[in-house]
Amino acid sequence: MDTTSQAKGSIVLSIDAMGGDRGPAAVVAGISRSAKINPDIRFLLHGPQDELERLVARRRNLQGRCEIRHAEGVVTMEDKPSQVMRHGKGTSMWSTVEAVRNGDATVAVSCGNTGALMALSMVRLRKLPGVNRPAIAVLWPSRNPQHFNIMLDVGADIRADARDLLQYALMGVSYARNGLNLDRPRVGLLNVGTEEHKGRAELKEAHDLISAQAAEANFAFVGFVEGGDIPGNSADVIVTDGFTGNIALKTGEGTASLIGDLLREAFRYTPLSRLASLLALTSLRRLQKRIDPRRVNGGVFLGLNGTVVKSHGSADATGVSAAVKLAFQLAETGFTNKLAARVASAADLDHDTRNSGT
Amino acid sequence: MDTTSQAKGSIVLSIDAMGGDRGPAAVVAGISRSAKINPDIRFLLHGPQDELERLVARRRNLQGRCEIRHAEGVVTMEDKPSQVMRHGKGTSMWSTVEAVRNGDATVAVSCGNTGALMALSMVRLRKLPGVNRPAIAVLWPSRNPQHFNIMLDVGADIRADARDLLQYALMGVSYARNGLNLDRPRVGLLNVGTEEHKGRAELKEAHDLISAQAAEANFAFVGFVEGGDIPGNSADVIVTDGFTGNIALKTGEGTASLIGDLLREAFRYTPLSRLASLLALTSLRRLQKRIDPRRVNGGVFLGLNGTVVKSHGSADATGVSAAVKLAFQLAETGFTNKLAARVASAADLDHDTRNSGT
Repeated sequence: MDTTSQAKGSIVLSIDAMGGDRGPAAVVAGISRSAKINPDIRFLLHGPQDELERLVARRRNLQGRCEIRHAEGVVTMEDKPSQVMRHGKGTSMWSTVEAVRNGDATVAVSCGNTGALMALSMVRLRKLPGVNRPAIAVLWPSRNPQHFNIMLDVGADIRADARDLLQYALMGVSYARNGLNLDRPRVGLLNVGTEEHKGRAELKEAHDLISAQAAEANFAFVGFVEGGDIPGNSADVIVTDGFTGNIALKTGEGTASLIGDLLREAFRYTPLSRLASLLALTSLRRLQKRIDPRRVNGGVFLGLNGTVVKSHGSADATGVSAAVKLAFQLAETGFTNKLAARVASAADLDHDTRNSGT
Repeated sequence: MDTTSQAKGSIVLSIDAMGGDRGPAAVVAGISRSAKINPDIRFLLHGPQDELERLVARRRNLQGRCEIRHAEGVVTMEDKPSQVMRHGKGTSMWSTVEAVRNGDATVAVSCGNTGALMALSMVRLRKLPGVNRPAIAVLWPSRNPQHFNIMLDVGADIRADARDLLQYALMGVSYARNGLNLDRPRVGLLNVGTEEHKGRAELKEAHDLISAQAAEANFAFVGFVEGGDIPGNSADVIVTDGFTGNIALKTGEGTASLIGDLLREAFRYTPLSRLASLLALTSLRRLQKRIDPRRVNGGVFLGLNGTVVKSHGSADATGVSAAVKLAFQLAETGFTNKLAARVASAADLDHDTRNSGT
């Protein structure tokens, strides 16, 4: 075995080379790009040994910084999560998660099947003490100074009671602090209106629970927010259940994609507009960079013993590199341990409160 | 009394002149624009007599086609629905709805407070026989040949059980047929995945109920759809509860508005990009026209004895005119009666089924 993962002063990430729509070549190109920019990063790469060796050998940046862990099987986008949990042991996805479980790496990255990755991560990494439902958090282009909001849950679980929503708030705050460098994030609870009397019963209860933890956990609770605040500037962390979050995420993505296509169409319409699009090219690229889903890449699984970054299935080298950058930052800040401590201390607080109440 | 509402071959719409952000001048400008384009349209205009007479006198198109009904009070955006129901009798909004209740007009249009308008409409017009929860339907820019999808409910009620969702489907189909001229609309049920086993229990039940009515009610049921299908081309009618629909609507609007602002910013960035934006002006206007919320104007309240079109609070003349156009089309096709028949026949069917089962 090579000494990659023990190298001093470096961060080791566990990378699933397989399962993405563009295959291992895109993944290797992506980690090579990250390796070039960041000298402190090392990789455990999971997939078929021969194929990966050939791909890695072509990248000078990766020499001595990338250990390959052989895994024959590949989880496809069509595989059912239950199947993968039962029969997925020889797959690159399993091996990727296992390296985090063993402590060989602190953060895992995969472009594969979301449902299977979540199920595997749940079973192999297990939930953090005090967490009832893990969540998937995404970064969303917004009017914030940092250009992104965090929204969770976007689909790990379709249910969430008031206590789950409180945990999402705490996990989102920890992510905002370590992933977006925000000292005192603003937290909003997604609802159909900002008035306190509106919405479902569990939302009113969650409102009170989150409000009660704001001082202790050092975040600002802005109360209820609406759909328009997800790309807005009134909160940094948007808390919601996985059903609503998933629909909001996909509605926003679909709307952005429709506008992008209509824009391209508009620019092709006349010779004059085609000329205009050439002149505007750099401006449009700047805009695209700001809202490019490849750069907002990486849903993060929160609430487990270890952090898993889920990259888009269609991620190319740019997308993989963005996910690796996020994974590196979360590993470097010791995010998993900080999140665990945050959730545990809230659970203690809650425990204290309940004891003192009896 | 003038004979406006009895004029032969014309459609009378009941218009609330007050309560919008831009005041009665914008409303009168909007109906004047509609009057100019459409000779078959007549108006009952509600608000302070003197002020409205002055505004109407200036518009030649409106002479002899616009009856003013005096109402002193105005419902503001801050008024609580419960207050308006108790004390709103002298307001222009009340008077506007009352004209539909009396049969002087078949469709009402207001730019005012949505909650108050819905509450007033519920109490004064009452629910259609067989309808449990009325719904608000909106038009959403999409990849469909008709350029819009219908989504409902977007916020009339935060709850909806399986039977309510079936009624939304039937009402949406009727709206699609009469408002968008689609003979056999495609209906999708909003969920977090398209597989039949996914989602909440009431969604699975609604799936079966809607599926069972498709042949009888002459629509195509495409099953579960996701957030990305709202601006997509897989369904014409998207059915969901008012909580999820409201959040999807506002997320989509917010995302579109963010992209619009970033686009304008991108074009201002350099002298070259400013030149480009001049050259691209007509193309960009074409794009804006396609996704302009002022033209997609008009949430429609469905499931009442009478149809109410809710225009954006910030609607200008273009926005009001778009809402009037929609109201005219719905009045002309006899939408309210057709919807009532559709819902009633489904209720009968349901009744038959239940009887035969006992």
